[in-house]
Amino acid sequence: MSRIAFTKGHGTGNDFIIILDPENQIALSEQQIQRLCDRHFGMGADGVLHAVQESLWFMDYRNRDGSVAEMCGNGIRVFAEFLYRHEFISESAQIGTRAGVKHVERNGADSWSVNMGNAQIFAEWIDVKLGNDAFKARSVNVGNPHLVVEVASLSVLPATLLWNDVADVPSHPEGFNLEFYEVLSESLVSMRVLERGVGETLSCGTGVCAVAQVHMQARNIGACEVKVPGGQLMVQESSGELVLTGSVELIADGFVELT
Amino acid sequence: MSRIAFTKGHGTGNDFIIILDPENQIALSEQQIQRLCDRHFGMGADGVLHAVQESLWFMDYRNRDGSVAEMCGNGIRVFAEFLYRHEFISESAQIGTRAGVKHVERNGADSWSVNMGNAQIFAEWIDVKLGNDAFKARSVNVGNPHLVVEVASLSVLPATLLWNDVADVPSHPEGFNLEFYEVLSESLVSMRVLERGVGETLSCGTGVCAVAQVHMQARNIGACEVKVPGGQLMVQESSGELVLTGSVELIADGFVELT
Repeated sequence: MSRIAFTKGHGTGNDFIIILDPENQIALSEQQIQRLCDRHFGMGADGVLHAVQESLWFMDYRNRDGSVAEMCGNGIRVFAEFLYRHEFISESAQIGTRAGVKHVERNGADSWSVNMGNAQIFAEWIDVKLGNDAFKARSVNVGNPHLVVEVASLSVLPATLLWNDVADVPSHPEGFNLEFYEVLSESLVSMRVLERGVGETLSCGTGVCAVAQVHMQARNIGACEVKVPGGQLMVQESSGELVLTGSVELIADGFVELT
Repeated sequence: MSRIAFTKGHGTGNDFIIILDPENQIALSEQQIQRLCDRHFGMGADGVLHAVQESLWFMDYRNRDGSVAEMCGNGIRVFAEFLYRHEFISESAQIGTRAGVKHVERNGADSWSVNMGNAQIFAEWIDVKLGNDAFKARSVNVGNPHLVVEVASLSVLPATLLWNDVADVPSHPEGFNLEFYEVLSESLVSMRVLERGVGETLSCGTGVCAVAQVHMQARNIGACEVKVPGGQLMVQESSGELVLTGSVELIADGFVELT
């Protein structure tokens, strides 16, 4: 058992434990990640951001089950704030991820943008069933697959979105993230999201981009705000790529037992 | 916004944020407690243990909704370990709570006992309905009210116990904690618990005492072990009072933003 330094932070309710380890000397096992992320026996988080210094700072992102993940739109914004507070990066920086180098920018106090790359909307509509209700979804790829459903009002949805209530979709045998959104105004939508392998979450960076891309294309606009249960984010199109912007918060620092 | 020192710990998965404040200078508002205990926007915990020094150390216990509570059987054991690590108490100590002075004792590394007082079993059986299933419960008072149901196997219960599935009980208009238990052997039972105002939890100190008292009386024994989803605890009767024993773990220390 050893003690390691940690910082906890969140972006729109998507929360992370950051482990600063410039020389990559802390080998985090799946079991250790699971314990750190356990909300009763550990610190509790949606994932771990292991900060390693290579030619750039590298975000070694781990899901709460210990598996590696390529990218996380909220995670990298929290990660940028952490590096900025330590004066490891300036207000505009490149950060390495398993999905390639990502550009981040600070937008005043506690707000960061990340270029999420492009989001591709496919032509055909996909049938989605939630309980006894049938919906038509757009299929969107933001590095990972999304099905995006516009509804007249989010109030038609059950109190909790559960994967158990979603029927399999033949065109997506490897699964998908599922978003429902309601248009509040020309440039503002509200959404809820079911993350693949997780369940309903307070926020999802790629899901926000998928919804924004569908809405922006439908309205022929270049930016929109997206409400999620954990807060609000902005998406802007720039040369065909999506820039995700929103607040982040670092809430605690300390030392945690690595059991 | 200010930063305060904290420790996080748990007893059988019941987790707490401990705030050391000997001179009682930190006034924690309901909103601040809610934020600290929020599992995404804060540190996350079932409750806050505010450690204040009076003639004895006093456990100012707060539920995660910010309300005050009298006592918590797992909380006081975690609290004792925290005070012991700081050398504020010895291996046997008295701790003040809103439910009176409680005696705690250390039982080797990371294990503490607390005298929970007496548990009173009432004579009449109470009808409890969970979904379409009807059960007969013993009514037990351990400072707070419990209904205790013995089942042949916990496997008959749904995956998650929900208050929505429990019918009102006319004899208990102010509510109750509800425990289901299965006898594994003469001196070992396994239980699940629905806590009043909360929902299903990994452990509940008074619930463990209520179940143990029912089982010990039925078998005419003086001690038993109780499995809970978060671990295992022991209950021993001593001069008509129940002593609750089990492991605790302090998992992190640091500084947290008090927003």
